[in-house]
Amino acid sequence: MPTHYEGSKKERIALDSFIKFMRASESVTSKLAHGLADYNLTMSQFGTLEVLYHLGPMCQKAIGEKLLKSGGNITMVVNNLEDRGLVSRKRRESDRRFVSVALTEEGTALIEEVLPHHVELIVEMFGVLSDDEQQRMGEFCKRIGLAAASEEES
Amino acid sequence: MPTHYEGSKKERIALDSFIKFMRASESVTSKLAHGLADYNLTMSQFGTLEVLYHLGPMCQKAIGEKLLKSGGNITMVVNNLEDRGLVSRKRRESDRRFVSVALTEEGTALIEEVLPHHVELIVEMFGVLSDDEQQRMGEFCKRIGLAAASEEES
Repeated sequence: MPTHYEGSKKERIALDSFIKFMRASESVTSKLAHGLADYNLTMSQFGTLEVLYHLGPMCQKAIGEKLLKSGGNITMVVNNLEDRGLVSRKRRESDRRFVSVALTEEGTALIEEVLPHHVELIVEMFGVLSDDEQQRMGEFCKRIGLAAASEEES
Repeated sequence: MPTHYEGSKKERIALDSFIKFMRASESVTSKLAHGLADYNLTMSQFGTLEVLYHLGPMCQKAIGEKLLKSGGNITMVVNNLEDRGLVSRKRRESDRRFVSVALTEEGTALIEEVLPHHVELIVEMFGVLSDDEQQRMGEFCKRIGLAAASEEES
């Protein structure tokens, strides 16, 4: 992170905001990862359970798209969850070329146990801002995220 | 990401803000990583070169602390940079137990070439917010980051 970069005023403002943003992102991620480690879950494993819980069974590719991870990575994540009996793979009756991943009973029970704690941590961290501030923050992030995503295609 | 979580108003505001924050973080990181890939550098490799460039030679442990990475990871990062002739390891004259990592001439030339492009990307992304908005965003991030970090110790 270019904390010591001497640039124009415009550059220094952007870099300062960027550095605080990246540090916050690291701290938030680290805190959530620690919380999930109590349940022996990585962030990707939790994300997969959560997506299946809220959106229902889906193929690995769709899970990957939801989590913005590469295909190879998701295969390993699903394999590990399957080994623990938290998800199962089933060939779709309607089209036998497709394999769906679904939560097992154990997986459903685990995500229902973990989710409230995960949400509590998020509310704790983001709750240091007022409701209005959180909404402004969300709006700022959305604009930056869109700028980052649109540039990527150019 | 618990996009479909049905909770209290307070929970929904925090989750909405959190999701936009995490998505922005992923988009920003992805865009910067793509930019660095043009120079065949990972984010950790770039971070290491940048830290050595702005703060001077230091031991691996100090680099790791600056980048918030585990020791093992930094060893690999420094090894790869050393293989490419971008950094060199030297035993300190003042205390021969310590090994310092320093930029080579090639490393200095590369970071001086890459840094302006990296900063330009950051200014492009964060510049969609006004100066005032960027400063508010930075302030919000700082408060959330501190909340996340302080909780971790408890």
